[in-house]
Amino acid sequence: MPLATISLRQGTTREYRRAIADSVHAAMMDALGLPADDRFQLVLEHAPENMIHDRWFFGVERSEQSVFIQIVINRRDVSEKRRLFARIAENLAASPGVRPEDVFIGLIEVAPENWWAYARPPDSPVVES
Amino acid sequence: MPLATISLRQGTTREYRRAIADSVHAAMMDALGLPADDRFQLVLEHAPENMIHDRWFFGVERSEQSVFIQIVINRRDVSEKRRLFARIAENLAASPGVRPEDVFIGLIEVAPENWWAYARPPDSPVVES
Amino acid sequence: MPLATISLRQGTTREYRRAIADSVHAAMMDALGLPADDRFQLVLEHAPENMIHDRWFFGVERSEQSVFIQIVINRRDVSEKRRLFARIAENLAASPGVRPEDVFIGLIEVAPENWWAYARPPDSPVVES
Repeated sequence: MPLATISLRQGTTREYRRAIADSVHAAMMDALGLPADDRFQLVLEHAPENMIHDRWFFGVERSEQSVFIQIVINRRDVSEKRRLFARIAENLAASPGVRPEDVFIGLIEVAPENWWAYARPPDSPVVES
Repeated sequence: MPLATISLRQGTTREYRRAIADSVHAAMMDALGLPADDRFQLVLEHAPENMIHDRWFFGVERSEQSVFIQIVINRRDVSEKRRLFARIAENLAASPGVRPEDVFIGLIEVAPENWWAYARPPDSPVVES
Repeated sequence: MPLATISLRQGTTREYRRAIADSVHAAMMDALGLPADDRFQLVLEHAPENMIHDRWFFGVERSEQSVFIQIVINRRDVSEKRRLFARIAENLAASPGVRPEDVFIGLIEVAPENWWAYARPPDSPVVES
């Protein structure tokens, strides 16, 4: 039950934002084996002046189309994290076409017991609505 | 000095959002023994397309009235976390009436030394304004 | 590659918010030795009713001009955290003039491997645009 928060500047289309969210989720499924329904995402649209980074971080040119991705997730080993980062950057380059130079990712790791969602009791009858 | 961030979709009343915040805070007081004044909460209202989750996560129907609650808090043991989760879901069902199926909670644990707020120096005179 | 999220209420000027962001970043450079370009900040402007805290937390009067600062950062020792807190409060008091009583800070520590940003491959030619 990870939670991904995606920050970008105002002025994009709904389709563009959805493509970013889809690409991030597909990367989490591919790189970490998450099931398709284990998807919790927030997209934050910021006024340009409220999303701040250096234009030349690490000596690479970054643009106004940059995206910050923060994912709260169960603890992972280093190789899984690297696989996830690579896949997110790759997916976003493919759709909707975000330059890897404009992608910034941070993970916050937590214990599996730190999540809660309602689950049907094991012996309860399944009622189709 | 925990910080609770509550995410829901646009279109609710101020009273509804306050009831959610009150219920979350009451649960933290009851389940963890926090004092009443140790309350720091942010409510984020999202455009519907910017708050994304699967409608059938875990095989349970989730709705557009769902609420994501993220709490940054000092480390707790498992039993305290479970008590907190149960109490939040219970309180929200009572007021303002959020289905447990629509509540999603995540905790981020930190060290007590990770918080800062101004405190009056121990020997300073108390000045009533 | 820390990420600082600054929350305050709606109704401030762009210059005021920028001064807060600048003061927080200067504090991180001074207290932790971060380079100037290692700057990633989000400013969230909340409707007054969506940013909630007790007016008399710790017996000190807090106002509507309060600022919540949440920083995700690599693990630091206690003395560095204390230095950072002191410097942030000091800088904000100087510019734009936020009372220390209205500053609330929380750190979320992560492993250095939890960050990703595109870096030019070591042997690639530098192309000036």
